[in-house]
Formats: sequence, structure tokens, C-alpha cells
Amino acid sequence: MKIDILIKNGIIIEFDKNPAISSIAITDGKILEIGKELEQKYDAKQIIDATNKIVMPGFINTHSHVAMSYFKGLADDLPLQEWLSKHIWPVENKFLSAEFVEDAALHGCAEMIKNGITTFSDMYFFGDQTAMSAEKIGIRAVLGEGVLDLPVANYQNADEIFAYIRKMHDKYEKSELIDFAVAPHAIYTCGKENLIKAKDLALELGILLHIHLSETKQEVQNCIKKTGLRPVEYLDSFGFFEGDVVVAHAIWIDENEQNILSKNNTSIAINTNSNLKLASGFDSFKSYLDHGVNLSIGTDGVASNNNLSIIEEMSFTSKMQKALNNDPTIFPAKEMVQIATIGGAKALKKCDQIGSIEVGKRADIILIDINNIEAQPMYDPYSHLVYSLTSEQIKDVIINGKIVMKDRQLVNIEEKELIEKAKYYQKKIAEFNHVR
Amino acid sequence: MKIDILIKNGIIIEFDKNPAISSIAITDGKILEIGKELEQKYDAKQIIDATNKIVMPGFINTHSHVAMSYFKGLADDLPLQEWLSKHIWPVENKFLSAEFVEDAALHGCAEMIKNGITTFSDMYFFGDQTAMSAEKIGIRAVLGEGVLDLPVANYQNADEIFAYIRKMHDKYEKSELIDFAVAPHAIYTCGKENLIKAKDLALELGILLHIHLSETKQEVQNCIKKTGLRPVEYLDSFGFFEGDVVVAHAIWIDENEQNILSKNNTSIAINTNSNLKLASGFDSFKSYLDHGVNLSIGTDGVASNNNLSIIEEMSFTSKMQKALNNDPTIFPAKEMVQIATIGGAKALKKCDQIGSIEVGKRADIILIDINNIEAQPMYDPYSHLVYSLTSEQIKDVIINGKIVMKDRQLVNIEEKELIEKAKYYQKKIAEFNHVR
Repeated sequence: MKIDILIKNGIIIEFDKNPAISSIAITDGKILEIGKELEQKYDAKQIIDATNKIVMPGFINTHSHVAMSYFKGLADDLPLQEWLSKHIWPVENKFLSAEFVEDAALHGCAEMIKNGITTFSDMYFFGDQTAMSAEKIGIRAVLGEGVLDLPVANYQNADEIFAYIRKMHDKYEKSELIDFAVAPHAIYTCGKENLIKAKDLALELGILLHIHLSETKQEVQNCIKKTGLRPVEYLDSFGFFEGDVVVAHAIWIDENEQNILSKNNTSIAINTNSNLKLASGFDSFKSYLDHGVNLSIGTDGVASNNNLSIIEEMSFTSKMQKALNNDPTIFPAKEMVQIATIGGAKALKKCDQIGSIEVGKRADIILIDINNIEAQPMYDPYSHLVYSLTSEQIKDVIINGKIVMKDRQLVNIEEKELIEKAKYYQKKIAEFNHVR
Repeated sequence: MKIDILIKNGIIIEFDKNPAISSIAITDGKILEIGKELEQKYDAKQIIDATNKIVMPGFINTHSHVAMSYFKGLADDLPLQEWLSKHIWPVENKFLSAEFVEDAALHGCAEMIKNGITTFSDMYFFGDQTAMSAEKIGIRAVLGEGVLDLPVANYQNADEIFAYIRKMHDKYEKSELIDFAVAPHAIYTCGKENLIKAKDLALELGILLHIHLSETKQEVQNCIKKTGLRPVEYLDSFGFFEGDVVVAHAIWIDENEQNILSKNNTSIAINTNSNLKLASGFDSFKSYLDHGVNLSIGTDGVASNNNLSIIEEMSFTSKMQKALNNDPTIFPAKEMVQIATIGGAKALKKCDQIGSIEVGKRADIILIDINNIEAQPMYDPYSHLVYSLTSEQIKDVIINGKIVMKDRQLVNIEEKELIEKAKYYQKKIAEFNHVR
């Protein structure tokens, strides 16, 4: 039988069994079979020799702002409000446009792939351009158009954003890679009326609802002052969690709120690096697990991380949680890898499609080279994925059954063009910052 | 004038000025000149084109166990005592030998260089073999032979270890790369008598004293129970800090103890990843800074990290400290880079020789490629070094004026030989673990 790709003799990560050397047959974007000696059975257009490679599901990044690429390292080590109001918002105000986002998103998508991310769930503006860039590079994305009360980007009001989301939902209906989502920015930028409209739209279209929530103590205190309720309780009071919801950050959430999230199958996108870098805080996620809340990994934007390494997120998250809980056994390596893959799939309600290597699922697979001194010796692939390796060892990325990175070279775009464009924008942004 | 190396047109990191494009002339192991257009002035045997490269002092790793390479990922996610007594000590007991250490140290030194580390300060056994491997690969090292009360490695008692250190100190007296140190393991493995002997020997020979200290709350509580004093006070009571001392971990240290350390110019090796991974704890280092304690960066061993990335240590340390202190301005990027370079040089009392790019200092320099999508755009090199980049971008390493890594390829050894050896030991160690 003719197939598209045969991945041969890799160390396959299947969560219900020990890692073992096996092969994967891929065709029409899906995993057809997992087994040994598949070469006899299939005639593959492309054969990938996965000897000395870990073959695993691609990472799923459930919270990002991919088009913030050109703001990487623009302003660090600043108090949050100053960072936002004196640096980030002014540059966004000056530069955000369809063209800027298309370029920046292409750069960001390229970084995602180099970090082994095969699906990302984004929150930003000009989602159509982000979608074009994502499709061009071949990455899977759930694109949440940001909703705020005040005018933002090219919108005069939230109703325009809702109309745009409807339009995009229709436009990308048949896309195998792109979904749209409704992304009310936060409870302090989006009043109750627009939060309800956002929730209703997501429910009506059957799409994801994606919000920043309980990122800082101040946010929680302000919510209590204003509504008498904690943020999750406040949102729950008007059925915000009824549909498919991902809340990003969520580090100031008490047990009652955890129960609400769990009861509603609402997932959390953990953003450890961002939370720490902005001194937003930290929390033990053990309690969330105990309350049955689904966890996933986000990177936030590169202006507050400042890279898109899921491996670093897994590493720091696991270690932080061990120390916070005074328990080195908590968040072990395999669990972290699952949170970064199947946990993300659950969050995006795409468990039937992605998040693990299983027959019938989409072929979103990454190959990680262990034939190097950083990865040798290896006793447990999961351990290495979380504690030893870096994105440098991620060599090949397959998304929807197509190779998008091979031997650490992007297939659909030239990295040097992205670099030139980044330098072009860097000059303009640096000049703008200098003169104001 | 003929010189060994000319680094041309790189973005030079000199701490007393802004990063700027310049060149560096290197000869006889030292930095001869820093300036523009040095090609006219010097005839260099080797010219390194540093266009689009950050040129900075090599990282200084002030706490490692380099020969633990083959224990990487051997046992994770376990309670500390179980990890030590059921996994690490048995394999060390079984495998530690001169030959094992020489092989393992060579592997570890190679990993150090790939992470841009040009000097490391180690604590282990068979220091002679570690020295041979370090010299073979061309890395600078301060090798602390571990001192314990009980028999360990091939020593029957601590006096044998002291005799060995004297011998090694003489043997490597003329070495440009190797120094020996006295490394009493910890206050719970080394009684007062041997701690005093260790201290006296280090003072007599004028070499470093290197100890694990206040790594866990338990250690502190046990010390108080036994001596009535906290660990730093206890050591101070017999003048332990009189000479050149580095204490590793030091996360359970109160203000009085910080004053003692500061008064004695004793430095701390921060090991963030290890402390968190083993759930040893965490502490705000802001207070230490305010008390004038010199900070530096360690990685600990790869069995409790599990890599040797100083960039990750800087990133995670900075972010943890921001969150712990509820202050995103603390431990800004430039300061972290200094802690990882000149801070390390101060800790090892080698400020006149290494830790910064200055005329007259040893040429321990690393070049970091920023012509890639991870590093572009760049507004501030320091920011990128701490928050954006990974060791993947470290391309060239010069130690003592010799190129030891070029275009990410080690010069003095073949990585594939190290890999084969690692696989050989992995089998033996895995078998041993399996049958016991």
C-alpha cells in the first residue's frame, strides 16, 4: 500500500506503554499504523530514519501571542504596569496592522516549529493574517481574536470583533489547520456585557473561549472589590464556563474556584516563565490536579518569556512545583510531557485528533535526536525531554502528515528571509522607542 | 605584530560600557587589545569573523560534579534520601574508579564547553583523572577533591585525601588550566576535626575551600540540634571562612549568617535548578546582595539538574527571584550575566585572570550567534543572553587563547567517541540497576 511517510525505528512515545523502538505509517494527514517492520507492508513516498530519535506527539502551546515576535526583549525587568503602558501598548499602537501581524506571526510560527510546537492557541488581533502565516508554514493553530471594551487594533468596538470572528470562522471552516476562537482579553478589559456576548458567540459557533484570568493578586482583589466575587466565581455567575474554555495563568485561584473549573471541564494554560518574569506570582498546581482541573502549557508572548521553548516550560514548571510543594516526586517527567501534549489537546477539545501518537489521530509528530553528548547516556526518554534536553535536539517536525522541519531546517520558508524582516522591524521599533 | 587570534567585528560585552561592535586581539593566552580595525595592526594566525555574534566572557560554573555525567537522568522524581541512598551512592560505589572518572569527566567537560562554560569549580574524586580530561579538552578547572569522614572512593580516611590534594597541588602547579581545591563535602559528612584540617590545608596552600552548605532545612535543624549554632555560625566558630571559600546552595541562611559570609568575602554558588528539582527549597537572594555577599552560578551535577546550561540557570534564577521578591526589576539581565561570569571569577579569586573581557586577562571567550530567528530581533544582548537564547546559539569557545569549540564542533575530541563511551556505560549501569 502506498503511503506518504514512514517513520522507521524510532523510540516511540505512546503513553499507555513503555517507550520502545517501533515505526509509524502516516498517510492523508493521519497515523495509519504503529508497529515494527512496516517497510514490508507500506510503500512510502518519504522514509524518515528515526534511529536514535525519540518520536513523540508535538507540543501543544495553549497560550500565546505569536505576533508579538518583534517585541522580543524590547523591555524587560520593569514593573508590570510600566512595561505595559510605557512600552508594549505604545509599540502595539504604533505598529499593529494586518501587514505587521502577518510578518510577525510568520516569524513566531517559525519559532514555534523550531521548539517542536505543532499546535498553538493564540490570542491577538488580525487573526486572518496570522492564519495565513500559519497555513503558509504549515502549523496547526486555534486563533482567538482579542475582545476588549475599548477600541483596539482596527476595531472601534467589541461588536466589530464578534462580527470578524464569525467571518473568520466561516472562512476557515474547511481548513485542516486553522480554527478560530473567541478571546475576551481579561475581566479588567472586558465588561460583563461583552464577556457574556463572547461566551454566547463561542457556544453558538461551538468554538473555544480563551481568556487571561487571575494572573495577578491585584486582579483578584479588584474583582472582589467590584463584584464581591473572586474572578472564577464572577465568570461562573453568568455561565462563562459552560462551553469549551481555556483560562491562561490562573495562579490566584482558590479551592472553590478550582472546583468550578473542574466541574465545567475548563482547562488551565500554565505560563510559568511569564508569571515569574513579570513577578505575577506562583501557585501550587498540585491542588488543581487534586481537584481534577486539566492542565496544559502555554508560553505567553516572547516579550514576557522570552522564548517559546516548551521544554523549558516543562522543566521550570516541574521543578517549581516540586519546591513549592516540598515534594520532589510531584509533577514527574512523564506527567509533564503529558501535560504539554495530551493535556493541551484536552484543553483545546481536540483529544480525538492530536496530543498523542495513536492510530487515527492527526500526524502531528516531532523527532528528537539523542545521538549527542547532551542526550547520552539515556535511561528514560521522559526524563530527558523534561530535564536534560533543549530545543536544539528537536530535528524534525511533521504537522498534519507533512514535514515542516527537516534536520532543523524549516521546509516552507527561508529562515534568512525571516531574519532580514526582523532586522527591518527592529530598526523601526528601536527608532520609535528612541524618539518618544 | 604577529598574534594568535583576532576576533573581528563582534558585539563585545564589556561591563563598563554598552555592548558595541569591536575586535579583540588575543595572543599567548591573553587579551592583548580591544578596539576597532585591529586587522591593520595585527597579523593573526587565526581570524574569527564575529559579525552577528555576541562576544562575551565565558561562563564560570562554580559548583559542579563533572564526572557524574553517566548518571544523567538515572533517577529522577524521588525523595532526596531515597535518590541518594538507593540510586546515586550504590552506582558510585560500584563504578567509581580512576578510569570511570576520566571517561565521565571528559564527557562532562565536553558538555560544559557546549554550554559556553570556560571555567568550572568541581567537587568529586579522582581529581587527577578529571584534570587530565580537562587538560585534554582544554577547559579551565578548579578541582576540589571531596573530603568525608567515612571511607569513600579509594580513600580509607580523610588524611589520605589531604595527602592526595597536596600531591595534586604540586603536580599541577605549573598548569595554566588546572588548580586544585579542598572540598569537604558537607557539615553532615565531615566532622569538626576534618573540617578544620581542610580549612588549614587550603590556607596553607593558598587554594580554594569548597563546601555544600545549608542546602536543606533539615541540615540546618540538625546542625542547631548538634551544635547550638546555625551552619555558617558553626563553621565560623573555628575560622572556616578565613581563606578563599565557596559555599554551594546556601538557601537556608539568615541575615546574621549572610553578614558572616560577606565579612569574610565568602561567595555563594547558586544552584537554582538543583534546589528546585530536589525540593531542597528556595530563598530570596536579594537579601544576600544587600548584605554584600558575592553570588555566582553553579549547575550541580547532571543527576540533579539535568543539564549544564548556565543560560537556563540565569533565566530561571532571575525569574524565581523576581517572583519570590514580588519585584520584576530585581536581578535584571545584565546583573545575571555578571553573576555568571565576573561573579564566578570573584568566587574563585581569579578576578585578575578571568570573568570579563579586559586587556591583560586570560582569553576565555565565547561567541554567540544572533543571526537566527530565536535571536532576532535583538534590542539588548544582555536580555537575550538571559531570557531568549539557549546553548544552541553558542558557536565558538576560546579558553586560554585556544579555540576549543568552533561552529559548535569540539576541536580536541570527537563527540561520537564520547557518545559511544556513554552508551557503553549506560548499558553497564542500567544492568546493575536492573539486577540489584
